[in-house]
Amino acid sequence: MKKVKITDLKIIKTSNGDVMHVLKKSNSEYKGFGEAYFSQINYKKVKGWKCHTQMTSNLVVAHGAVRFVIKDDENKSTGYCEFILSKENYKRITIPPGVWFAFQGLEKPFSTILNISDIEHKPEESKNVDIEKFQFDWRLK
Amino acid sequence: MKKVKITDLKIIKTSNGDVMHVLKKSNSEYKGFGEAYFSQINYKKVKGWKCHTQMTSNLVVAHGAVRFVIKDDENKSTGYCEFILSKENYKRITIPPGVWFAFQGLEKPFSTILNISDIEHKPEESKNVDIEKFQFDWRLK
Repeated sequence: MKKVKITDLKIIKTSNGDVMHVLKKSNSEYKGFGEAYFSQINYKKVKGWKCHTQMTSNLVVAHGAVRFVIKDDENKSTGYCEFILSKENYKRITIPPGVWFAFQGLEKPFSTILNISDIEHKPEESKNVDIEKFQFDWRLK
Repeated sequence: MKKVKITDLKIIKTSNGDVMHVLKKSNSEYKGFGEAYFSQINYKKVKGWKCHTQMTSNLVVAHGAVRFVIKDDENKSTGYCEFILSKENYKRITIPPGVWFAFQGLEKPFSTILNISDIEHKPEESKNVDIEKFQFDWRLK
């Protein structure tokens, strides 16, 4: 997986509630600020496949647990990279333009992802195909 | 409350999970990107009082329910403004420098706030006093 970057993030424990790093301007994965939004994903449901043509997404799980599946190259790659992220495995995924990805909720009733993207949402810059378009076994063990 | 701004945010319902707006570059409340982080607040616990001298914070509840209490003017004001935010009452609070605020978790085991601030965290730019410093009844009914 050449283009996608996974970064460990710090959790600072305090007695009143933890502080969890997400993204700083000085991080190399920060490509500018366009928009921040939450995407919730219901248990067992999948959102995808999506491929942005301009947007770099910085994704962090705000609540719950999420399975991210990344197809690094639509034509050449034969496989997928899979990550299960949560507070217990707290990391940031940086997805540049040109990468197909999808994600699945692993907690009831839903999990919440924060996306900090370098451009504001515009529907025409992302390609979307049905989840059946790429073969992947989404059944949960 | 002159300086603090409360903004309704859109929630877009979908069958796989909702999309919840947070902040766009084109919003007037966006003052630049310095850092994004989560602050979790345990049930009944309070974080505060805090007053930033440089930072503008854009705060959104990512999970749970949070009581925000804002003291708009340390010297002149005799009262407080109070907001309970959650997915059911989904809004953004924009707190400019010079405003004392504190917040309390209202859900078990904790709630999660997203802070998008216009500068990176630096401890010397914020003033912190004990919660007893300003009189406020934090007991939950």
